[in-house]
Amino acid sequence: MAVNIPELEQKRVVIVGAGFAGLKLARLLAKKNFQVVLIDKHNYHQFQPLFYQVAMSGLEPSSISFPLRKAFQRADNVTIRIAEVEEIQAEQNRIITNVGLVNYDILVLAYGTQTNFFNNQKFEALAYPLKSVSQALFVRNEILSDLEDALITRNFEDRQLMLDIVVVGGGPTGVEMAGALAEMKKYILPKDYKELDYNEVDIYLIQGGSRLLPGMSEFAGDNAKEYLENLGVHVMTGCRVVDLDENYVYLKDGSKIKAGKVIWAAGVKCPRINGLKEVCYGPANRLIVDEQLQVCEYDNVYAIGDLAYLKSEEYERGHPQVAQVAIQQAKLLAKNLIKKQSKGFVYNDLGSMATIGRNKAVVELPRFKFKGFFAWLVWLFVHINSLIGVKNKIVVFLNWTWNYLTYDQSLRLIIRPYIRPKRKRPTGNS
Amino acid sequence: MAVNIPELEQKRVVIVGAGFAGLKLARLLAKKNFQVVLIDKHNYHQFQPLFYQVAMSGLEPSSISFPLRKAFQRADNVTIRIAEVEEIQAEQNRIITNVGLVNYDILVLAYGTQTNFFNNQKFEALAYPLKSVSQALFVRNEILSDLEDALITRNFEDRQLMLDIVVVGGGPTGVEMAGALAEMKKYILPKDYKELDYNEVDIYLIQGGSRLLPGMSEFAGDNAKEYLENLGVHVMTGCRVVDLDENYVYLKDGSKIKAGKVIWAAGVKCPRINGLKEVCYGPANRLIVDEQLQVCEYDNVYAIGDLAYLKSEEYERGHPQVAQVAIQQAKLLAKNLIKKQSKGFVYNDLGSMATIGRNKAVVELPRFKFKGFFAWLVWLFVHINSLIGVKNKIVVFLNWTWNYLTYDQSLRLIIRPYIRPKRKRPTGNS
Repeated sequence: MAVNIPELEQKRVVIVGAGFAGLKLARLLAKKNFQVVLIDKHNYHQFQPLFYQVAMSGLEPSSISFPLRKAFQRADNVTIRIAEVEEIQAEQNRIITNVGLVNYDILVLAYGTQTNFFNNQKFEALAYPLKSVSQALFVRNEILSDLEDALITRNFEDRQLMLDIVVVGGGPTGVEMAGALAEMKKYILPKDYKELDYNEVDIYLIQGGSRLLPGMSEFAGDNAKEYLENLGVHVMTGCRVVDLDENYVYLKDGSKIKAGKVIWAAGVKCPRINGLKEVCYGPANRLIVDEQLQVCEYDNVYAIGDLAYLKSEEYERGHPQVAQVAIQQAKLLAKNLIKKQSKGFVYNDLGSMATIGRNKAVVELPRFKFKGFFAWLVWLFVHINSLIGVKNKIVVFLNWTWNYLTYDQSLRLIIRPYIRPKRKRPTGNS
Repeated sequence: MAVNIPELEQKRVVIVGAGFAGLKLARLLAKKNFQVVLIDKHNYHQFQPLFYQVAMSGLEPSSISFPLRKAFQRADNVTIRIAEVEEIQAEQNRIITNVGLVNYDILVLAYGTQTNFFNNQKFEALAYPLKSVSQALFVRNEILSDLEDALITRNFEDRQLMLDIVVVGGGPTGVEMAGALAEMKKYILPKDYKELDYNEVDIYLIQGGSRLLPGMSEFAGDNAKEYLENLGVHVMTGCRVVDLDENYVYLKDGSKIKAGKVIWAAGVKCPRINGLKEVCYGPANRLIVDEQLQVCEYDNVYAIGDLAYLKSEEYERGHPQVAQVAIQQAKLLAKNLIKKQSKGFVYNDLGSMATIGRNKAVVELPRFKFKGFFAWLVWLFVHINSLIGVKNKIVVFLNWTWNYLTYDQSLRLIIRPYIRPKRKRPTGNS
């Protein structure tokens, strides 16, 4: 049965996913002559670039999440539905969700990526992904409970399991996570866990490629490595994880690392949704789109953001899966839909950046690169500016200022979920 | 095996529970000539009076929780262990916890209360308690997901199940929760859930006694009732819940209310710990103490806070289970231990208060009572002032100011826990 959605006499644009791309598009179509239905499995937008700070007790989930309903309180043409898409029935112009059918005139897919464990079931079972605020909170709880366990563990070898942390993947998430862990070791452990010898804590960053931050220049990668090594991180480039078990991380060169926590930031892929033709899928399940961001073979289906795979001369392997591309694609698509035009997408690369820690960052603008304190300030400014909601901007700014001045954040709470059986309820559409 | 705790040449005071009483005592004994071991099942202190605001998306858990380790960063004589006490072996001066033995010279029990379902298994299985931040987050998620479900539910009767809420218990928690729910209906639903008819939302407050706020005066109870009724809450005094199922709340007078969410604020009792003599237990498992707060039959075991049951002429049924009593008992016990004296406890009642909503509160001081805007300001001030940590005070103040000015809080996030199998680990003391 169809999901209960108001009937309006406008073309209905159904947007699947409220990440950077989907949210931006919905905001641009708000109060325009469309009926917009925004579907996400969460009732909030999450700011992915800062998940690692949630994992490190630096920020609260609410500071980097924004409720979708609040974002559209003033837009009467936007309907929000919390649902998961199960199938696309393009011939009938409708999608099947876990709460019922949704018809569309135009379908925009913006459901993004998920962690890529490269079909290795052990990686999936044992390593910790970092692709949602819930997963970030889970990592936070694991780190903190392991520190508590280590305190009461007399055996050195057992303690290693609790204290040592391996981060897999040398992209921005891996680099930022490793840097934050090293700062925790340096600034927090000696104050909060005086009984522990913080020299026992080892942080490893494992990167398959020959250098860190492969999406950026050699300048950025080399400086990130130097920063991390100065903080005491064991940076291992040109190194691959081949196996995992409950005690060890096994590397390609035959060596192994004893560590109970493996944070997996080694790559992403897109989920697949039933119903789309096989020919639409590109590498890592990205959807192949043309310059108008239209999914090949379908007239009224678009893909934007990390999901879209648009090959061009400059971007032979598709565009980078970053917020800027998503936002620019949403802008182009909104304009094309509103003005009934079909302009092609041209990416305007505004630059990229990564932070390693206090006063330490690398920034690359189209014309020049820099690092250090000023780069770190730019990183802070750009991230605060990109957050949704004035209150979130203020809260994150205050948090960061507080942390900077005190070298200490007070969010180290192990809040375990309260779980109880859910009542049986009539299904939504009965 | 014994828990790994540093051996110091001081008397060891083991404090069980880091609520108002236990935390205060530990802080007063910090840097004094004792070895203090503070044991709690959480790594943070929780500020119970504001749990209902977490449930109502008004505050984040971290704003009303404070990490214990941070509280004692500068106190070298305080050791913190996250553990649950399973048994007291008073003859051997030790307790058994889930992570091993802990020896003591002096044992202070301050483990407080839990929700009292009066041994009714249906109440326990179906009603929602509100005695921890995790439970408060659970209630938050239930309220928000039910609103989402209601949007896509066409049948009026089914929607009632999702929209109507019954609060059981007319003490401060019940009154404050009912008031906050009524304000959500008035200020938030019309903005966030325009498709819903907010008149369909009914909020019930059920109180067994003849009036609300039985711990306060008639003045307070009557005014709270008037405030709540003006906000549209169905206040039912002299009314008892006799049964629950998945669809209905059954009342003593034979009537029933269709509601899927029942918030249980109808009473508390203390948990029992193996090993204490039966004769120590008073009403609701409180521990009978003498004026020095010493648990009867034991020379070196004390109980403070909600757990302590001290009968006096003025307090024939023991002292009220409120923060002020807990804090004053902790102060007295700290003084007695430090000065090796044995003064008796005399409660200095500073007053009590409850808030119903925006500009609406009742305050009773020893000499006079008042209500309305000024009472509400006093309530705000006293609660902010009682929070632990400068940052929490600032964050809560900013949150409340923001809410007051915008009539809107942006914490309405349904963040579901990420759950995965926990790795097998060697036990702490192996």
